[in-house]
Amino acid sequence: MSNECPIGFIDSGVGGLTVVKEAMRQLPNENILYVGDTARCPYGPRPAEQVIEFTRQMTQFLIKKGIKMLVIACNTATAVALEEIRKTVSIPVIGVIQPGARSALKASTAGEIAVIGTTGTIKSGSYERELHRKAPEVTVYSLACPKFATVVESNQYKSAVAKKVVAETLKPLLLDKPDTLILGCTHYPLLRPIIQNVMGKDTVLIDSGAETVNDVSTMLDYFDLNNFERNEKKTCRFYTTGSPKMFQEIASEWLSFTTLQVEHIHLGGE
Amino acid sequence: MSNECPIGFIDSGVGGLTVVKEAMRQLPNENILYVGDTARCPYGPRPAEQVIEFTRQMTQFLIKKGIKMLVIACNTATAVALEEIRKTVSIPVIGVIQPGARSALKASTAGEIAVIGTTGTIKSGSYERELHRKAPEVTVYSLACPKFATVVESNQYKSAVAKKVVAETLKPLLLDKPDTLILGCTHYPLLRPIIQNVMGKDTVLIDSGAETVNDVSTMLDYFDLNNFERNEKKTCRFYTTGSPKMFQEIASEWLSFTTLQVEHIHLGGE
Repeated sequence: MSNECPIGFIDSGVGGLTVVKEAMRQLPNENILYVGDTARCPYGPRPAEQVIEFTRQMTQFLIKKGIKMLVIACNTATAVALEEIRKTVSIPVIGVIQPGARSALKASTAGEIAVIGTTGTIKSGSYERELHRKAPEVTVYSLACPKFATVVESNQYKSAVAKKVVAETLKPLLLDKPDTLILGCTHYPLLRPIIQNVMGKDTVLIDSGAETVNDVSTMLDYFDLNNFERNEKKTCRFYTTGSPKMFQEIASEWLSFTTLQVEHIHLGGE
Repeated sequence: MSNECPIGFIDSGVGGLTVVKEAMRQLPNENILYVGDTARCPYGPRPAEQVIEFTRQMTQFLIKKGIKMLVIACNTATAVALEEIRKTVSIPVIGVIQPGARSALKASTAGEIAVIGTTGTIKSGSYERELHRKAPEVTVYSLACPKFATVVESNQYKSAVAKKVVAETLKPLLLDKPDTLILGCTHYPLLRPIIQNVMGKDTVLIDSGAETVNDVSTMLDYFDLNNFERNEKKTCRFYTTGSPKMFQEIASEWLSFTTLQVEHIHLGGE
């Protein structure tokens, strides 16, 4: 395994790009490969077995491309497939839930923590379990926001529709008055300004994906996997099972890239 | 290896207590064993081979006590012995230099980073190398502060002597005007108010030890080693090769503990 090998990122769609953006900022030397399973997004409502199978397919695709580390940049997939994937590959595998939960516990002043995510993530109880294992005394409010990922994937995350959907969905949380809110889906940071506006400025938003990059950085140090080569031809490649055009539109804007290599791929029977 | 096993911390003296303090805050469930090699402190002026040997002795002492993870809470020992110790034990071993360097790179706005440490740490060039490998463009100013650790070990860290020593030693750095200063010795956070006063409020101080606890937390998650048992009889034991009385005085004040178990031990031929 060479240090110049890329880090792999996988997500159900474009959400994991919020993790990639932070990775590009914190780890400018690293080569990056990304798979967004847009054709089968959202993962949220799917049964766990299916999410595990799809995650395994993305992982295998990237392993064949020679990645040195894998980031499951998707909360739904982390919730149900992280353990399974760790068992089957020999490279370090990092999920987004533990970093998000850890960061929320550090940030919370009143111990009133809310988590929003897909139906799959919320139903798995992963955040709640993780938070309570470490801090049984905190109160955790969990809310599934099934429409959010779809709004982002259809490139409507700045629209009036987005504002309406976010305001209506988060209404129950306003009564709970959490001091900290975990964005427990990597799609949600694209909705961040709207979410912050609805929750009010006193609620600290935790971007689980961005927090994950701290773990990636720690792991690169620990396993001595950093890429110290400054290469003008740095690799940053994106693969999608859906429309490369739509993916490119969202990714270019979000990552502020004028040109972006996006390639269509087939995974399994999709 | 059980999750209830303690985490081991080793240092040349009381400096590592600054790491323990942060660990107690962030990881309240964890049992802690600490060795301070006060009798042979400071490590700074000693040859590398000797520091490696002393570090190995402390490590073996704690391995026999059944620790699940080792934190080399000493910059001098991390600089010269981390790789060696990692090779010889089967538990995860974490040093303080990579977390400190990583955090400084995140914090620095102007890329003007200063590092202060013992003669041994500065002579090893560890921080400079680590910073430049990741960010060749930053300017690094390194300054050995051979008297600082001794001032702390003799419990004079709030005295007029401390103020004078710090002001005189740091004088050359004032001309360099670093935007970020790494406290590259775990003793230095006890001198933090004085150091901040000398450097001015615009210089961001990085406590490499406290940053290390983030790595400890990440590693506990990654290796599934967290202790989730809430135990009223939590273990927190301190061993020193020097005077338990002096150790207890400094530790009790620094950690705000009224009672503290400190035991005298012999290591090697000291």
